[in-house]
Amino acid sequence: MDINYHPIGTIHTPYFSFNAPHQSLPDAPGDFWITLNPEYAQALKSLDSFNYVYVLYHLDQVNSPLELLTHSPWAPELEIGLFASRSPKRPNPIGLSIVKIKEIQGSEIIISGIDAFNGTPLLDIKPYIQFRDNVEDANNGWFDSLPDKDHKIAHALGRPHHHDSEDGDGDGHEHSHGHVHRHNHDHDHDHNHDHDHDHNHDHDHDHDHNHSHSHSHSHSHPHNHYRFHSEHND
Amino acid sequence: MDINYHPIGTIHTPYFSFNAPHQSLPDAPGDFWITLNPEYAQALKSLDSFNYVYVLYHLDQVNSPLELLTHSPWAPELEIGLFASRSPKRPNPIGLSIVKIKEIQGSEIIISGIDAFNGTPLLDIKPYIQFRDNVEDANNGWFDSLPDKDHKIAHALGRPHHHDSEDGDGDGHEHSHGHVHRHNHDHDHDHNHDHDHDHNHDHDHDHDHNHSHSHSHSHSHPHNHYRFHSEHND
Repeated sequence: MDINYHPIGTIHTPYFSFNAPHQSLPDAPGDFWITLNPEYAQALKSLDSFNYVYVLYHLDQVNSPLELLTHSPWAPELEIGLFASRSPKRPNPIGLSIVKIKEIQGSEIIISGIDAFNGTPLLDIKPYIQFRDNVEDANNGWFDSLPDKDHKIAHALGRPHHHDSEDGDGDGHEHSHGHVHRHNHDHDHDHNHDHDHDHNHDHDHDHDHNHSHSHSHSHSHPHNHYRFHSEHND
Repeated sequence: MDINYHPIGTIHTPYFSFNAPHQSLPDAPGDFWITLNPEYAQALKSLDSFNYVYVLYHLDQVNSPLELLTHSPWAPELEIGLFASRSPKRPNPIGLSIVKIKEIQGSEIIISGIDAFNGTPLLDIKPYIQFRDNVEDANNGWFDSLPDKDHKIAHALGRPHHHDSEDGDGDGHEHSHGHVHRHNHDHDHDHNHDHDHDHNHDHDHDHDHNHSHSHSHSHSHPHNHYRFHSEHND
């Protein structure tokens, strides 16, 4: 049985194969927008009443072979099943991301950061409805069993955080005492996203001593709660 | 450009076209399970570490024409765009539901209630990860602007709730004072789900005076927080 879909628009991002990040942040630098095919523009009515939407897209630039068992970049030591991961190498390569709606202009939708390559074909947009999609008793699955869970989650969220001891976090990296610790995955230009996403990378570390003005991923304070909602890296 | 996917399994539910409910509940009566094609069984490793998963499926039994503007059964007076709804009549009929994982046996996954027809082709399973999919500042979009929002949401969730006055809720139905109010959508046997989902129905009302043992959708107390996470009716 063949299931045939067709693109209903295109996702525009600053990401190409040479600079795809490990994750997206709502305030990721660059412009992110969806161009919906104009014949569907009417179907956007009231979409801007939602803070967030699901974006479904075809992962057309994934051409590496399917792996039934995989590894997350956030826990490379752990072997997990493909369906327990958000790896893009799936039997049906459908990407699912949650993004913020910033503005709708005709058939263009300005959105927050999305971890998709520029030119990705759009399949669907659905509202993220708080009372049904915000599941109160959800957990983090195998993430919850990691010994340095909170730290790994901070990394996975791209959330700046403090390290209180010399390499006391178990990740094999050395961090300065009490300094803000940022990973600028966006600067990881030699990272081929599709082929390498499930291996650990040497991230650029940004030991910036709280002088954050010179870096694109810098935030106003280290305990912000920005989240990323992207497809590729859990 | 054609996008070709293939079923990787089958979703089994007690729902056929003559008895499809308006929504599913985690404790909906009947058995719900996914039969994954056995060649993918290995890819389920660690999936049971997650409380909830996303299920993506092909809405193969939707054959009514696309409507760019639609109406929710919960707010039939409001015209909304298709992409601001979870109507199954979409350009690419991909269903997205959040379900609870109950048990995994080989390539069979026992799940909580899902609002899909029996035999629906499975496209993908992805983990619902609390730290990225549980969006704290999400809202309910156009639901939030309904004058009787909380009541409508209780209906949409299939959540038993009290009515404090004679038809004081604005929905045109008459309810007994202070009685538990349940809608047994599951008994709505003449409801053709695909064609009628966006019209208001005459629901069976269950004014059961708190004697709930005889009804399949009854719960132990009226203020439970069961949720449904299904595709078809917002």
